[in-house]
Amino acid sequence: MKYKEYFSETTLNMGSSMIRELVASTKNIPDLISFAGGFPSPKTFPKQELSQIYAEVVAEEGTDVLQYGQSEGDSLLKKEFFRWEGYEDLNDDDALITVGATNGIYYFSRSLLNPGDAIFCEAPSFLGSIVAFEAVGADIRCVSLDDEGLKLDELKSGIEQLKKEGKQAKFIYTIPDFQNPAGTTMSLERRKALLQLCAAEGIVILEDNPYSKLRFSGEHLPSLYRLSKEAGLDIVMEIISFSKILGPGMRLAYAKGHKELIAKMVSWQQKVNVSPDCVTERVVTRYMQKGLLNPHIDNICEYYSPYLQSMLEALERYMPKSVTWTSPEGGIFIWLWLPEKINADEMFHKASQAKVSYIPGSKFYPKGQEKFNCLRLNFSFSSLEQIDRGIKSLAEIIRSYGV
Amino acid sequence: MKYKEYFSETTLNMGSSMIRELVASTKNIPDLISFAGGFPSPKTFPKQELSQIYAEVVAEEGTDVLQYGQSEGDSLLKKEFFRWEGYEDLNDDDALITVGATNGIYYFSRSLLNPGDAIFCEAPSFLGSIVAFEAVGADIRCVSLDDEGLKLDELKSGIEQLKKEGKQAKFIYTIPDFQNPAGTTMSLERRKALLQLCAAEGIVILEDNPYSKLRFSGEHLPSLYRLSKEAGLDIVMEIISFSKILGPGMRLAYAKGHKELIAKMVSWQQKVNVSPDCVTERVVTRYMQKGLLNPHIDNICEYYSPYLQSMLEALERYMPKSVTWTSPEGGIFIWLWLPEKINADEMFHKASQAKVSYIPGSKFYPKGQEKFNCLRLNFSFSSLEQIDRGIKSLAEIIRSYGV
Repeated sequence: MKYKEYFSETTLNMGSSMIRELVASTKNIPDLISFAGGFPSPKTFPKQELSQIYAEVVAEEGTDVLQYGQSEGDSLLKKEFFRWEGYEDLNDDDALITVGATNGIYYFSRSLLNPGDAIFCEAPSFLGSIVAFEAVGADIRCVSLDDEGLKLDELKSGIEQLKKEGKQAKFIYTIPDFQNPAGTTMSLERRKALLQLCAAEGIVILEDNPYSKLRFSGEHLPSLYRLSKEAGLDIVMEIISFSKILGPGMRLAYAKGHKELIAKMVSWQQKVNVSPDCVTERVVTRYMQKGLLNPHIDNICEYYSPYLQSMLEALERYMPKSVTWTSPEGGIFIWLWLPEKINADEMFHKASQAKVSYIPGSKFYPKGQEKFNCLRLNFSFSSLEQIDRGIKSLAEIIRSYGV
Repeated sequence: MKYKEYFSETTLNMGSSMIRELVASTKNIPDLISFAGGFPSPKTFPKQELSQIYAEVVAEEGTDVLQYGQSEGDSLLKKEFFRWEGYEDLNDDDALITVGATNGIYYFSRSLLNPGDAIFCEAPSFLGSIVAFEAVGADIRCVSLDDEGLKLDELKSGIEQLKKEGKQAKFIYTIPDFQNPAGTTMSLERRKALLQLCAAEGIVILEDNPYSKLRFSGEHLPSLYRLSKEAGLDIVMEIISFSKILGPGMRLAYAKGHKELIAKMVSWQQKVNVSPDCVTERVVTRYMQKGLLNPHIDNICEYYSPYLQSMLEALERYMPKSVTWTSPEGGIFIWLWLPEKINADEMFHKASQAKVSYIPGSKFYPKGQEKFNCLRLNFSFSSLEQIDRGIKSLAEIIRSYGV
């Protein structure tokens, strides 16, 4: 049987995230210094506490957690989430628990997008989301970033352009805090202006929030969701992932937003996963009930902070003047702009030979809209010594282009 | 913002499984005897063993299982699955681990179906799958069942009919063992004939297998997947769920089939869930490595067998002659045919008042193709005493129609 002839069009057109392929291509290089992945450090995993809680939950609540659970997610866990964030007024139907943030983003896109529908997306942005939008046939319009987040004048031009085409964007996808891959954080002023603009233009905001709790310095900013609620706008769907603050293997995130949209996402969850893993849900509930989450996040921040510092210092020390980079106050990524003539996709192979890896910046743009003189560095996985040595090697490779 | 105007067409057209709504509608009836759900008995959950294994896995392998995992699923777990089933020749890329069987069915459908594509489906069949097929816009053609499984002559006519319409079915969806909702098991002869027919006509088979291990008497039959492999046909995708043999809250299943199709399903998993829960995967791996699974399944069968027996006896004792039912040798469901003039949807409310519930048969047919003089009974959840009392009440209600 020729399976190829059986595949659906969306399946045949589906892009792959390429990051896994890139990471795989360097897998067998001994002593490789990898700035490529987006993996949290396993040293931050609270293994002993979780081990004990898993045992407790299954022994004491096994009758409940090993049985079928709610598609909308465990009410007890949602209650803990609301308490944690200080949303005492939210109810069960204001949120949905998902199998990681990508899962929530998928349900959100599936609930809103017909093939050909226009959306706005920061560029660069998280590849996993871009390919998911592409997979449902979205017409992706890019908005680039400056130090304060996505450029509003570009967004306005984009909206005007769509109007000329007789179209309207359904939503804008943004990662306001320690953006992946850029590392930038949207300023408070920009957040407020974005909300007003989107409210006026009838554009829903999808706020992807995996990193905001990973702030090592500076002041925590309110999420777009919180600002939207305070302004009585109700136009934001915020998705908070537990991958970077607990453990990505547990596949847990939660989405808050308008009840009608949450209800549709729950319908998709029924069809796609039935429910999240009920054991995991109750384990995180207990972890939070025991008051372990916030101290754990403090520990992670304390742990990561020197890695960020040391990568920023190494960049300062070794990079030629023609290279620039973002200076995040948290998260796990730094973004580099190279001189125009350097193609980071090509340079990737040279870097691999020198036993350093990164993700070429082009991978964070929708198809056909790539930029090539840029790259993403992760600082949460390598050792301090590797960071210094790796950045030094990378600088040498860049200098070899005569810049 | 009027969210309704933003929803995608598939979302607006999406059916709901109704079973949850039906079950919810009887939730507050005290002392209700429920034959409605498809829940395994919590008494069969191996809480103590699992509690200990969760603790071990997270403490000893936390670095690994709390980190991001493979989208195609844990290789170690797949190895255990292959050993368990005696497929020593299968490799990692012959299978995919999913977040429950529904998740696998979703990836399978998404990989193959364009809106309007024709598929065959047993009627009645598992509602969760039917709504998932409807959600991707499938043109569902029904094939009814007799005591040996789906009727091949009906399938042949269906194929001829499609040819007249210039169409070809992409796949047929079947639950050969202890079918949900009918309880029937496809005979060996029928399995072989179905395979030959589908191979000749170029139709893929989706074999949903949640119950085959729950056999209380009679002889175990080889799966369509196994027969297909033995015949060198390679046209079957088999999905085995762990919901009924371990615990549905753990959301775990695995799909075996042609490598090309598995690869596409993995691409969908990347976009939809990234990966299954890695803790759960490794817990089931250890559970199997310790040799606990087969003895546990034996215990479940021993536990359920008297419940089936007692429901069959009660039906024999109380039901009027005009009612017929299937006599499964395992699984968790029995199917009843009522006299033509009784509508089981209407009777549902009378039954609720008499504190008995079931699922009306119409819920197991695609929209517009329903039959109403039938219903599904579950025997895995109520006590033996409740089974006798509930069937007696139900028989009285049926007799009240003067049949």
